[in-house]
This record gives sequence, structure tokens and C-alpha cells, in this order.
Amino acid sequence: MQYRRLGSSGLQVSALSFGAWVTFGAQIGRDTARELIAAAWDHGVNFFDNAEGYANGEAERVMGEAIAELGLPRDGYCVSSKVFFGAEAEPRPTQRGLSRKHVVEACHAALKRLRVEHLDLYFCHRPDPDTPVEETVWAMDSLVRQGKVLYWGTSEWPAALIREAHKIARAHHLQPPSMEQPQYNLLHRERVELEYAPLYAELGLGATIWSPLASGLLTGKYRAGFEGESRLGHADKEWLRRVAVGESGQRRLERVTAFVELAQELGVAPASLAIAWCLRNPHVSTAILGASRVEQLLQNLGALDVKLEDAQWQRVEAVTR
Amino acid sequence: MQYRRLGSSGLQVSALSFGAWVTFGAQIGRDTARELIAAAWDHGVNFFDNAEGYANGEAERVMGEAIAELGLPRDGYCVSSKVFFGAEAEPRPTQRGLSRKHVVEACHAALKRLRVEHLDLYFCHRPDPDTPVEETVWAMDSLVRQGKVLYWGTSEWPAALIREAHKIARAHHLQPPSMEQPQYNLLHRERVELEYAPLYAELGLGATIWSPLASGLLTGKYRAGFEGESRLGHADKEWLRRVAVGESGQRRLERVTAFVELAQELGVAPASLAIAWCLRNPHVSTAILGASRVEQLLQNLGALDVKLEDAQWQRVEAVTR
Amino acid sequence: MQYRRLGSSGLQVSALSFGAWVTFGAQIGRDTARELIAAAWDHGVNFFDNAEGYANGEAERVMGEAIAELGLPRDGYCVSSKVFFGAEAEPRPTQRGLSRKHVVEACHAALKRLRVEHLDLYFCHRPDPDTPVEETVWAMDSLVRQGKVLYWGTSEWPAALIREAHKIARAHHLQPPSMEQPQYNLLHRERVELEYAPLYAELGLGATIWSPLASGLLTGKYRAGFEGESRLGHADKEWLRRVAVGESGQRRLERVTAFVELAQELGVAPASLAIAWCLRNPHVSTAILGASRVEQLLQNLGALDVKLEDAQWQRVEAVTR
Amino acid sequence: MQYRRLGSSGLQVSALSFGAWVTFGAQIGRDTARELIAAAWDHGVNFFDNAEGYANGEAERVMGEAIAELGLPRDGYCVSSKVFFGAEAEPRPTQRGLSRKHVVEACHAALKRLRVEHLDLYFCHRPDPDTPVEETVWAMDSLVRQGKVLYWGTSEWPAALIREAHKIARAHHLQPPSMEQPQYNLLHRERVELEYAPLYAELGLGATIWSPLASGLLTGKYRAGFEGESRLGHADKEWLRRVAVGESGQRRLERVTAFVELAQELGVAPASLAIAWCLRNPHVSTAILGASRVEQLLQNLGALDVKLEDAQWQRVEAVTR
Repeated sequence: MQYRRLGSSGLQVSALSFGAWVTFGAQIGRDTARELIAAAWDHGVNFFDNAEGYANGEAERVMGEAIAELGLPRDGYCVSSKVFFGAEAEPRPTQRGLSRKHVVEACHAALKRLRVEHLDLYFCHRPDPDTPVEETVWAMDSLVRQGKVLYWGTSEWPAALIREAHKIARAHHLQPPSMEQPQYNLLHRERVELEYAPLYAELGLGATIWSPLASGLLTGKYRAGFEGESRLGHADKEWLRRVAVGESGQRRLERVTAFVELAQELGVAPASLAIAWCLRNPHVSTAILGASRVEQLLQNLGALDVKLEDAQWQRVEAVTR
Repeated sequence: MQYRRLGSSGLQVSALSFGAWVTFGAQIGRDTARELIAAAWDHGVNFFDNAEGYANGEAERVMGEAIAELGLPRDGYCVSSKVFFGAEAEPRPTQRGLSRKHVVEACHAALKRLRVEHLDLYFCHRPDPDTPVEETVWAMDSLVRQGKVLYWGTSEWPAALIREAHKIARAHHLQPPSMEQPQYNLLHRERVELEYAPLYAELGLGATIWSPLASGLLTGKYRAGFEGESRLGHADKEWLRRVAVGESGQRRLERVTAFVELAQELGVAPASLAIAWCLRNPHVSTAILGASRVEQLLQNLGALDVKLEDAQWQRVEAVTR
Repeated sequence: MQYRRLGSSGLQVSALSFGAWVTFGAQIGRDTARELIAAAWDHGVNFFDNAEGYANGEAERVMGEAIAELGLPRDGYCVSSKVFFGAEAEPRPTQRGLSRKHVVEACHAALKRLRVEHLDLYFCHRPDPDTPVEETVWAMDSLVRQGKVLYWGTSEWPAALIREAHKIARAHHLQPPSMEQPQYNLLHRERVELEYAPLYAELGLGATIWSPLASGLLTGKYRAGFEGESRLGHADKEWLRRVAVGESGQRRLERVTAFVELAQELGVAPASLAIAWCLRNPHVSTAILGASRVEQLLQNLGALDVKLEDAQWQRVEAVTR
Repeated sequence: MQYRRLGSSGLQVSALSFGAWVTFGAQIGRDTARELIAAAWDHGVNFFDNAEGYANGEAERVMGEAIAELGLPRDGYCVSSKVFFGAEAEPRPTQRGLSRKHVVEACHAALKRLRVEHLDLYFCHRPDPDTPVEETVWAMDSLVRQGKVLYWGTSEWPAALIREAHKIARAHHLQPPSMEQPQYNLLHRERVELEYAPLYAELGLGATIWSPLASGLLTGKYRAGFEGESRLGHADKEWLRRVAVGESGQRRLERVTAFVELAQELGVAPASLAIAWCLRNPHVSTAILGASRVEQLLQNLGALDVKLEDAQWQRVEAVTR
């Protein structure tokens, strides 16, 4: 495994990490979850990503149980939670968002579900237009000072808001956010490459990117018509279908087709190629992989072995732009 | 239910909330208390207001027991306490006021009585001329940083003092007060509408107003001569009688009479109309209702359904000015 | 009882308070100790003064036990400790002084001996030339923020050092000292009346004065030749004898004699008069009384009833200058 | 025993202290470890030095057990830990270094192994080029404010980095480092005497120096050819051999030989002389002794009795330069 610093921070995360999104507490059972974490850990993965909103907290419960049963050393791995969407099917107004109340109570709930005494990373899962950034920054700082959170960050926040959070933190001697969790893949590049461009050096921002496979599109398995044993067969089907066939969906599918064919020509699994491409960006601290089977996970971890020449990478760029 | 932000904060409180004042631990028994809270919660109320001084702490004990028995989810509701008057019939000098000692010890006592690990809102129930504002601000900040209080505020403080508290907080990187709990109703408007006017935008002040019915006067039930099953039949009788018949009492009663007659003409219960009027003020975060019977509570919650035209509201203004 | 603010703070202490010095854990037994505290409390005393150095911690143990047995309400009284001299007969270097280590560990030890969760007042018993003031201020601030101490102060510090502590606290947003515990009586006036004069308004300093009877000299009972059942019969005999008969001892004794005769002429017990004189100084927050018998304590509490005319007070001044 | 302030701090450490390095959890058993600590304590030693990296945490476990069994009073002694190298034979990336994660988790682990509730001293065992100093300073400050660490410092940091840590601490009102733990002996002087020279007055830096005997070279026992019952017979043999016979090893051995002969001429044990020489530097707060036998420890503690005249010290300087 390769390790990278979380932005300018001292935290070393594995370049490939493992996330509970979509699968834990939903598609897969507890045994499979434990096997996936065991396999990831054995291959050097040290960051396990989660959120209160994944399967309404059930993803955290399953992960906490699995890690406890496996007996992973607490200082050897990192675990995250994210606050915003709530862990209830129908949250009351105070059970979601970034108010001090919810940020604090969601942290306590996540600690309990994950069975740990501190979260290594704690993300604001989205910006909350109904809470002043200052309130959230103060709440996060309190959790850091109380030792309940080590690093806090944001997910899918506009660059300007991240800057504002830093400014407030500096002015009041509070902990600024350390990282962002943006979507990043061959089909979704602007935020990471353009919007956040100045923030990496300026704020030392780390990026723990999600969906390196564009929800599976870049594996090529959806090309044949969206059937079979894949994510599209489950509840998120509708959302994924929308992504795939929406407004600009046709052009997107054409790019995916070209990418998959190129990968085959280069003798690399499309998924591995797509993940390896993400890691070429030095601002990516880690790419979060999802998986519902150990075999699938191991295959994707193989992205670390992909070695192409510059001319080949340029071809990848060419067909996906 | 409608929800509103507590000033500029991220806390969403129900536009109508429920308070223990006068009734809990005094007029009503534990069963009724529990039924009232259950009914309020079922109708979307998420803020339960209390104070150390209500029935000398008994109101908090009863509320804490009721909420525990009902099993309300901790992150779904807000509970408050207020410090100043003490919870003793004859408090010793350190058992009241806003000294660091009493602010801290009263918080601990309220947490225990209410059976929670943090107060969502904690109010300075009155200004304390014998304690520097700075001492109180520091004490509140410590409680917030320790996680024992989420939002602190004031009740019936002069605007200048609230501003001073903010200034001190800013200078020393402490938590400023987030909200005020003033009396506000058709007969008592100056503080909320004039004195605090600049504070809403300037400091993001929220207002959790009390006595929207002017201690029941605006229900009209006292018009006939102050008898029957009402608050006036109990211990506060004297205070209420004073309000009603004091110096300017006669003119006040005339306005009440006109208001009640207008409500009847408009086909709206006087109480509903009076409460609805409070909520027309966008600076009111929530109006705190009291009730000794479920039926009465439900009727008052009906204020949310009152819809009048502008011209009709102007008539309400006219008869009560 | 009369209550006074501790300087500009919001803490209300009884004008006469009760201290464990010399008697607790030494001259008197546990039953007497409990009776003394009970009597003081019944007469409105709400501040019980102590120090780690009094009988090597035994004074705190006895007081803690007595208060627990009496069941005094925690928010109704104040208890203090003082750090500097250590609680060991032969302290190791880290078991005394004002280093962060000793300030913190002595606090924890005092909390345990006194059986409380926070000290209301915590004093630096003397200046420590071997510790930078800054270190002590930071340590005290940490204890205040952790809720283990409510108000911290100094005892017998030079005015310049108190000012320095305030300056450091202001610069780093830390809790400044709130009070001093200086010796103050008719024979020992300079520090309180001259040296600290500017500090009361400037820093809001409170004064909890010790030895209002000049170690008993002002009771007159030593006039006849220093025998009988008095403090001089015990271990401190030597120190007291030195005070009484030292260099300027003869002149001091003459002033004492004149004072006692004047008191008798005015029909007031000398002790009551001496204590009442201390309370005439508005900068005195409280005068700490010692006692080994309930009768003696009650007599001294009688100082509150002493009423003299200005001309009579002037005669007191005249004979003691 | 002689006691010295840790730099300008108020902490009084014994001029000679005792360290677990090399011996605890490795060369010696638990009984010997306890006897060594008992002997050191009986001779006035009050600082016991340790690190997570010594025997992978085993040194701390052994020391914690020994101190507990001996029942040393917690406020009478100081114990340290150091963070950087990890306590695992093959640490994962987050199990070493100075990230907030490792600094915090290593502190918790050391507290547990040493069986204490706070570390008196906590060192950054080396600079970490992969963690911003600011992150480490904040993490240390949090531990100090939470009461888990009393004084934090560095070990073998360049002067410029120590200054940077102070600057950051000052700017954000955080605890600056109080001490350094550099190597210092007759053969290794530059850092302590030149590089750190301005820091003692400027930052009040204390120095807890290690290896006063240059890993035993200055005892002279290695002169005859590196055999017998000494450290060289054990696992560190290779490292020590390298030190002794490496590049400039020959010249170093000549200086050692001259030093040992001079010591014999002066009638002083070479080890005592070498240790006494360290203590002549007033910037040395304490010299940390290692020992695997009580006899050896007592002999080295004898350094306190070495009294030479200036001319004799000049000869020591002359032969070792």
C-alpha cells in the first residue's frame, strides 16, 4: 500500500481506502462486511469511511461491530463519520443539519455506533444554508478540544465556504477544517481540479475523494444495458439510472464506452485504470472504494499496480474529456 | 408545525413551544404533565421551556421524568433551564444570581433534575446588578465548551447589556448569547419591537417569547369577573389581579374587551388570535405556550391555522394599541 | 449575617467567615470541628477557609468530613484551599510551590480531602520566586476551565505581582485572580490600606482577610502574662511569643493594652471591637475567624452588632496608631 | 540530592535522574527494575524518564508496575514519555510520528502503561518532517488543557524548529514547549553549548540531557577491548561498536583514554567525573542516568560529590577537546 498525507496534515492515510456507502447495513450482511474490512486491512488500507446518513446509521453500526470483532489496533486505522443528513428515516428539524446541537449529538451517536472514543475524521456532509459557518466551526473546535474528533472537514462545500471557515478559525484561534470529501473521477473533475485548486497550497487542504468509479459506470459493467448483479439492481437504481441516462447522459455513455475499450486495449481492467487515474492527482489524499464482495475489492486495490506511460495517460485523457 | 431558526443560529425550534411555568410541579400532577408533553410532541413541538425557579425546581423534575417516561429522542427535542432566582424557597446568597458559582451549580442541578447531559438552551433569567457581565459570559462559555450547554441566552435583559455581553465575548473569543426570552404579547410590545430592534440583525439574536396571552388576559376568560377554573384561582392570583386591575388596569381591560369582541366577530378564538399575532413578527423564534389541560394546549396550537387578511390584522392592531 | 461581594465578582460571601487555621486537625477534635461549622452555618456564615498546609492536610480532611456529615447544601456554602506549603511534613521539591505540577496535584488532593467536586476559592498561599507567574496563571486558568475551581486568588502577594498576573491573564484570555487573602487587623494595616489601595477599583480585587484579632492579641487575654487556656499554650506558642515580645513588641503591647481598656470603657468586648473595625473597611470582603470553642465563635460573630459613633471610632484609631 | 528548575519553569527536577532506555523491558528483569527505582528514589531522584519507543512500550510497562508496587507518592516524582518512534516493532503509518492522531493516542497508551493519570513531561522524540509543527503544538496544548500532560517538550529538535513552535504557541495562546532532551557529554557538546545557547534565556528552555557517559564510553570500561559484562555484550552491541570505532572513532578513543587516565590521576571514577562535568553547565536541568545494577547507579549518583578546582576542570577540558 502507498500512504499519503491528508493535505498538509501529519495524518498518513492509505492512498486507497474503504467506504461503507451504499453497501454496509443495506446490500450486504454483517459477515461480508467484516470480511471486506479484514481484506482491506490486510492489504494496508487504514481509512474506513462512514457517515450518519449511510443506511440511517446502520452502516456505522455494522462497521463498528466488524472492527471490534477483528480487533484492529485503534491507533493503526482511521475511521470517519459525517454529519448533515441525520440517521433517521424522517429526521425532526434538529436531527439533521450543521447546528451546534446536531453536530455535537451526531458525533456522540457516531462514537457509540462505531464503538470508538474519538472519530479520526468528522465531515460536514454538505453545506447547511440554515446554519452560520461560524456556529459549525465553533462546534467542531469544541469536539476537537474535548478529544472526540481529531480532524474535521467538509464534503462538497464550495471553495468560498471552506475559505470562510478557515478565516473564522484563524480569527478565533479555533481548529480549521483539514480536508474535503468531494466526488472525483474521470467524468467529474471540475471541483477538485479547478474550484479547489488554490486551496491545497493555501490551506493545506486534503482530499478524500468519493466515487472514483462514478458509481460503477467506469467499470463498464453497465454498458450492456444495466442489468445483472450490480448496484443498479438495488434501491439506488433510480438515482444511478438518472445519472446514466439523464440530460447529457448519452454523451457520458459514449465517453464511458471509449474509456472501457481503451482500457481493454491497454490490457488494464477499466476499474483499475479509473482508480489509478484518480491517484495521479497529487492533491488526492485517498480514493475511497466501495465494494460488496471481497473479490471486487481486491481487484480495485490492484489499481496501485497500474503503470502506464505518459502517452498512454494522454490517451485516457483524450477519450474522457 | 412550523419551524424557525433561533435568531441567526442553526437551531430550528417549533414556532410554538411549551413551557412549564406556573403549571408544572404546582397546579397540575405528573400524569397531566406527561400527557401535555406527549400532546405537544405529537403536534411537532420540539422546545420545552423551563427554569430553576419554576416551583423551586419541581417543574424541572416533573418535566425530566415525563420526557424520560415518554422516551423522546434526545436529539429531536430541546429543553431549557434558566438561572437567577434559585430553586430554594429561601435561597442563601450563593444560591441565586449570576455569579460563576451559581451559574455553574445551577446548571449541574438542572441537568440532574431534567435527566439530560446537556441543556439545549440556558438562560440568565434576569440581569444581575451584583455580578459583572464578564463573569457570567465566561461562566457560560465554560459550560458551552464543556458540552453542558449548547446555546446560552438572556431573559428580560436591557438591550445595552446584551450588547455588552456580545462585546466581551468577541474580545475574548467566548461564546456570545444567542437568544433572549422577553415577554411579548398584544399588551406588551415595546421591548421586542423597539428596544431589541437593532439586535436581531446586528447580533443575530433569537427571541423565545413568553406570555403570548398576557397571563391569560387575552383569552377573555377573565372578563366576566375573575372567577372559575383559571390561573386566577391559584397562588399567582394576587399577581395576576394586580396586572389586571392595577394603575392602568382599567384601560388595559377595555383593550382586552375590544380585542375579544373583535376575535369573536372574526370567528377566531381570542387565544388563537393573540398567539397568531405574535408569530407575525419574524423576529419571534418561538412563542412559549403554557397549559394545564391537553384540550387547552391543542386549542392554542391551533393558532398556526389562523389566516387573516391584512385589513383584519390592522383592525387587531387598532383595538389593542 | 451581612453578605458582601468578593471584590467586583458576583460571589456573595458572609462578612464574617470561618477558618480552619491552627485549630482543625490539631488543637480540636472532630466533634468540636463539626459543632463549630454547624454553629457558623446556623449564623449565616457561608465561607469556610482552608489550606493544604493547615495541619498538613488534616484540617481539610476534618472540615470535609464535618461538612459532609452536616449535609450542608453544596451551593449554599463556599470552601477554599490554598497551595504552596504542601501537605507533607517534609515535602519533596515537587510537593510544594506554585509550579503547574503542584498547583494541579494540590487541587486534586484538596478536592479529595474536602470531599467536593470543585473548590469555590483556590489561593496561591504565597508568591513563589522559583516559578514564573505566567506558569501559575495558566495552571489556574486550566483548573477554572475544567470546572475544578471557581475563583482563584493569592495570599500575601505584593501588589506588583498581582498586577502582573492580571496582565498575563488579559493578554492570553485567561482567568485573572479574583481575590487576595492578606493579614489585616488594627496592628497590621499597611498592605490592605496602602499597598493594595489602587487594586480594588483597578482589578476589582476582593480581600478575604486573616487574623483580624492579630492572632488573639486584640482579645486582651494575653495581657496578664501569656498563660491559661489559649493558643499560646500550644505549638505556635513560640511564634506568638515572638510577635508579642519581639523587637517592637513592647510598644505593640502598650497599644493593645490601650485598645483593650478603651473597649471596656465603650462597653464592647475587645475581640468584637477589633473584628468590627476590620469590617468598616469596605474593601474587606470577609474577615476570617478562627475558634476552638463554639462559645468563642458566637462571641466573635457578635462583632456584627457593634455600633459606635464616628467619634468613638476615632478614639479607636487614636489609641492603636 | 541537588534540585534544579526545568529551565525557567517552576518544576524542580533532581540534578541526576533515572532513565529506562536500553535496560527496562530488555536487559533487566522486573525485580531489578524495581530495585533501581527504589534506590534512585531513596537517593532523591525524582524524575524517571521513559519513551514509547523504549523496548516497544515494555520499558513503560515495567516502570509503571515498579512505581505502583513501591507506592511512590504521585506528587513527589515526575515521569515522562516520548512520542515519535511508536511502540510497535513494525508500526503502521499512523502508529508513529507527530500527527495529532499519534500524539494523542500515544499519550493515552503511555498513561495506561505507566499507570498514571497525567504525564509530567511529554517529549516529541524527534522532529517529524511529515507533520506541520503547528499541528503538533495544538495537539500538545490540548493534552495540557485536558490535564493529561503537565509540561511538553522536544528531543533532538533543531533550535529553529523549537523557536517556531514557541512562535506558533504565542500567536494562538497555546502552551509552548518547556524543555529539550538532547544528548550531552564530553564527546558531544555542540548542540547544547552552541546551537541552543540563545534559547535558554529567550525561551526559558530546560534541558534534560541523555547519555552523559556517551553510551558508557566515558566509564573507561570499554578501553580494554569491548568485552565483559557491559552493554556491549547485548543487543545494542553493533550500534555501540559503530560509535566507538566508526569514522572518527580512533581519535575519539584517544580522547576517552586520556580522560580516563586523568580521572584516575585525580582520584575520581571516570563515570563520576563525566557526569559531574555535565552538571557544571547551568543550562542542564538534569542528567539522565541509565543503569542495569543498583551498584552502578549508586556509583554514578556519586557524581554529586565530585569537587574539583578550576584548574583541574581545565585539564578535563584540555584532554577531551
